[in-house]
Amino acid sequence: MQTIRVETPSAKYDVFAGSGLLQTLAPRIERTIGKLPRRVFILTSPEIWALWGHSVQQSFREAPVVLFLPPGEKHKNMASVERLTREMARSGGDRGSLLIAFGGGIVGDVGGFVAAVFMRGIPYVQVPTTFLAQVDSSVGGKVGVNLPEGKNLVGNFHQPRAVFADIAVLGTLPERELRAGLMESVKAGIIRDRALVRYMEEHADEVLAGNAKALEKVIADSIRMKAAVVSKDERENGLRMILNLGHTVGHALETATGYKAMLHGEAVGWGMIATLYLARKRGTISPGQFDRMEKLILRYGPLPPLNVRAAKVVAATSGDKKNVGGVRRFVLPVGIGDAGVVEDVTPAEIEAAVEYMLGRAQSLERAKSLAAQ
Amino acid sequence: MQTIRVETPSAKYDVFAGSGLLQTLAPRIERTIGKLPRRVFILTSPEIWALWGHSVQQSFREAPVVLFLPPGEKHKNMASVERLTREMARSGGDRGSLLIAFGGGIVGDVGGFVAAVFMRGIPYVQVPTTFLAQVDSSVGGKVGVNLPEGKNLVGNFHQPRAVFADIAVLGTLPERELRAGLMESVKAGIIRDRALVRYMEEHADEVLAGNAKALEKVIADSIRMKAAVVSKDERENGLRMILNLGHTVGHALETATGYKAMLHGEAVGWGMIATLYLARKRGTISPGQFDRMEKLILRYGPLPPLNVRAAKVVAATSGDKKNVGGVRRFVLPVGIGDAGVVEDVTPAEIEAAVEYMLGRAQSLERAKSLAAQ
Repeated sequence: MQTIRVETPSAKYDVFAGSGLLQTLAPRIERTIGKLPRRVFILTSPEIWALWGHSVQQSFREAPVVLFLPPGEKHKNMASVERLTREMARSGGDRGSLLIAFGGGIVGDVGGFVAAVFMRGIPYVQVPTTFLAQVDSSVGGKVGVNLPEGKNLVGNFHQPRAVFADIAVLGTLPERELRAGLMESVKAGIIRDRALVRYMEEHADEVLAGNAKALEKVIADSIRMKAAVVSKDERENGLRMILNLGHTVGHALETATGYKAMLHGEAVGWGMIATLYLARKRGTISPGQFDRMEKLILRYGPLPPLNVRAAKVVAATSGDKKNVGGVRRFVLPVGIGDAGVVEDVTPAEIEAAVEYMLGRAQSLERAKSLAAQ
Repeated sequence: MQTIRVETPSAKYDVFAGSGLLQTLAPRIERTIGKLPRRVFILTSPEIWALWGHSVQQSFREAPVVLFLPPGEKHKNMASVERLTREMARSGGDRGSLLIAFGGGIVGDVGGFVAAVFMRGIPYVQVPTTFLAQVDSSVGGKVGVNLPEGKNLVGNFHQPRAVFADIAVLGTLPERELRAGLMESVKAGIIRDRALVRYMEEHADEVLAGNAKALEKVIADSIRMKAAVVSKDERENGLRMILNLGHTVGHALETATGYKAMLHGEAVGWGMIATLYLARKRGTISPGQFDRMEKLILRYGPLPPLNVRAAKVVAATSGDKKNVGGVRRFVLPVGIGDAGVVEDVTPAEIEAAVEYMLGRAQSLERAKSLAAQ
């Protein structure tokens, strides 16, 4: 097990990454944050609970109150927040209650937001069960839900008291989800960790086969990168922006396709390819670096085909949350292992990048159908 | 005009209390927090906007986007938060946008919560238009909405960037609202400011007649008391609890009567009378102090009759947000001008206090009907 320390102005907490944490979850939480309160809530999805509920529950002396969030981005909304806070109020929740968000990124985002606003804020613990949630959404305190107008438009910054990332859980993940999650590690390497890029290039087979040692290395390094960035910039005023590499176009893709055509990590994967193109055009990365990073993304893909018009994606980028006061902020890689934020990206540049991305998707589909013949 | 400084760990801001601030609101905001952003939202009620909208709007060079919240506690809910954040997203709101909450306590609570969660938090300014909002809800950063299960069960701590309390606006208030608001000043005096108690005793006629100088004095002193308490205890872990004097029974009264029978200040007035009784029984105040404070409350009343069974009120006190881990916290006055928090109040004591309060309400009604004969 590896322990990664996160220190922000508003909170300090540890992320524990290792195998077999679930079976001893309750004592681990008590060792970290002290005696459990009278009322403990676990927010989870029916699927996760069916697989791991028994393991988790037997670690508690007193049974926690289990709340369910059905799977899917469509339940990451205000209606769920209202329903869950009402259930907590009816089950005797108070300001001292603890919430455990046990599931993927959506459970973490909704659970964290519910904890942020129930009785004006109660403590919570993240127990992420997908690769993506382990390396990304469980660290950093960004919590929230979607509106029909866009993703994560309602939320808060609320740091967990601890994060327990059990690598063993990933063994039950569908391969597609693992691959989508690995996009966050690819991103971590591109923006901040050249050595991780090399490791992922050299150990792609082991990582993709789910080798526990390789996975723990990739996950811990990814979390460490994010923890370092979040520790320096809790409220996303500066440095933390770089974590959004690929997200402007990625979110736009999700919006333009109604969140249904692809996983978040896959959208970010495509968004990173668009961004790499823009960076190459601007010269912040060389053509050789472009090829190496695009190859890495597609190695950890394969990314799904894109059936969407360029104009629709480009239009969706203008509602991006990273825009402040009408200024369009954009994260660009600088070489391999560094990144920066620029504010002068033009609509024409974004259009060209989106066109390249859609063209790349088409050529991959053609290659695939040729290979299938 | 008086300026009161609020300093909490998370924010420092000024409260401006004086006459005629609305006509120059926009330049005042710019002087305080800097250049206005591209998109400014004003959340207000149709009534307030009809009276003061023109004054406020002409102070802006670029027209702000006006959002409306219909009057009444029933709109202080999650549905309003969802509607308002959606309208803001559609109107081009971004992370740099400013929200101005212009209205009574409900507008302030909902507006502050919308600002706390829109795009994970945007800056906001309070422009309270009722006595209660000016002295209470606009200072301290407690924002939120109700659930069917209880008041303020969903919310956040989000400090405004500035508060502008225009005393001139109070002239248009119905007398009942002014009196209900003055309960907060009575409370301020009882828990922290003996001199304010005396001033309110000696100048009751002027204050109740709406004399501008007397009102500014009472409002500024009340805000100063609250600012001092909030500055020492932003997140309500200790001292700030004393601001809840009368609120345990007051909230229970509101819950038991469905929030419709009385104004919040009136419920707190009754709650304070129950609390004074409990304090007298425990000996933290003398019978003479009890009489003096009860008289002050009823002088600034008259409080509405109570048509509710004691058992219903007592039952509603157990859902109080101030309860942590099953411990029932209760604020008791200590003499005049001081207060403390106790955790050992028994259900029997609360029942006796509620019975006294209901009996007092009945005897007042009898006296009233005798006087009318």
